[in-house]
Amino acid sequence: MRRIRLIVEYDGTDYIGWQIQNNGVSVQQCLNEALHTVTGEEICVHGSGRTDSGVHARAQVVHFDTSVRMPADKFAIAMNMRLPHSIRVLFSEETNQDFHARFSVLEKSYRYSIQVGPHARVQTSGTTLHVHVPLDTDALHAAAKEILGTHDFTAFMAAGSSTENAVRTILKSEWLQQGSYLYYDVTGTGFLYNMVRILVGTMLEIAWDKRSSGAIARALTSGRRNDAGSTAPAKGLCLMRVRYENFDTETILQKL
Amino acid sequence: MRRIRLIVEYDGTDYIGWQIQNNGVSVQQCLNEALHTVTGEEICVHGSGRTDSGVHARAQVVHFDTSVRMPADKFAIAMNMRLPHSIRVLFSEETNQDFHARFSVLEKSYRYSIQVGPHARVQTSGTTLHVHVPLDTDALHAAAKEILGTHDFTAFMAAGSSTENAVRTILKSEWLQQGSYLYYDVTGTGFLYNMVRILVGTMLEIAWDKRSSGAIARALTSGRRNDAGSTAPAKGLCLMRVRYENFDTETILQKL
Repeated sequence: MRRIRLIVEYDGTDYIGWQIQNNGVSVQQCLNEALHTVTGEEICVHGSGRTDSGVHARAQVVHFDTSVRMPADKFAIAMNMRLPHSIRVLFSEETNQDFHARFSVLEKSYRYSIQVGPHARVQTSGTTLHVHVPLDTDALHAAAKEILGTHDFTAFMAAGSSTENAVRTILKSEWLQQGSYLYYDVTGTGFLYNMVRILVGTMLEIAWDKRSSGAIARALTSGRRNDAGSTAPAKGLCLMRVRYENFDTETILQKL
Repeated sequence: MRRIRLIVEYDGTDYIGWQIQNNGVSVQQCLNEALHTVTGEEICVHGSGRTDSGVHARAQVVHFDTSVRMPADKFAIAMNMRLPHSIRVLFSEETNQDFHARFSVLEKSYRYSIQVGPHARVQTSGTTLHVHVPLDTDALHAAAKEILGTHDFTAFMAAGSSTENAVRTILKSEWLQQGSYLYYDVTGTGFLYNMVRILVGTMLEIAWDKRSSGAIARALTSGRRNDAGSTAPAKGLCLMRVRYENFDTETILQKL
């Protein structure tokens, strides 16, 4: 058996998320079905992690095993012929059996995009949260700094989800402003279920003065979900980059 | 009667173009219908020019007359409540009767977007032409320069279209490269039917060595449609900016 890894881009709008579920079409299911047509094998792909319904990916990493003797770079082409246009395999190559799309992850990066203004721009409306009310960007920058470092993020986990250990390390947490757009860029060793969306939801409440400054630090200390804000809508979130030892999606994408 | 002018953004994918026709839904029709609901009046809006089926607009300029006494900036909000999400009124204000969206135009700017690479990127697939074969960018730059200035563009006009005078002045004609994306930015005092798409189609053929360098200059001289290339697909084209005396869409959009 050979192990193949892929970089996959998708628009999450029409999917129930990454993971196969019985109440709708998932990205994972589409990839499995495309691979079944290409290889004749029953393959279940592994992703670097789940993305929720409506969340996008610029660079999701996927691996699977196959006995088919096709040149590894041809999997991208063959799969794209069978996939819906909202899912594209941007890259495929053979890797060794030590590589695991989920367990080998060193760092993941997400971006949350917001457009501030009276009217939602058409071109970005599918991938950007539109808000009418101006945001206090100084408050956003200050709140983002409180997220940096190693913390127990229990307060920023979807209620009802169970994780033995909610300690995660955040290496980058920054807001970037470009005209009427605001981008929250976050990189970490791992993320809890809904964590980025709850972090963004909390920061928005702080920036709108609905929650006091220092709310992030307090929620990190208390571990209470109520001390954090609401979950920001899925459509603004995008998985931007996954980094492994000797494999970085950004390096590959910049060469394409 | 008051004259109102709008800046309108749209994704042209699902429309038969700007102009009302009886074989599909046009952007103009959607705006007329939204205004009918808002004002109770039968209004036919005027645009700065037609865009073809599938062509997008970041900043189309529109005017209409009404006797409704609503604050002018409220038209944008009221119309957006009735319009499909793929059409947004970004700005509305009152103007004087001398202003005409089409006849007062000084300059229009278009962008044609191309992605070069093995696989079409999902996020830009609706607004960008994807090509597999690399382009000779030196040839593109050289060809774009030949377009600059005042010429008779008869060769770059859709066959069968009639225009008394095909002389137009092109003030900017440049290719910009950003990673695997190429953008053709063109500004002129006016454009013929399909002109930008035929210019792009011709330049692509030159850059792929299917047509010799100097083909643009020769077609400008001969005026023969056969001396120009094919019409590039609509989805890569976007109306970016319209400039009038004392009114520039770019100045407005940058403040929004």
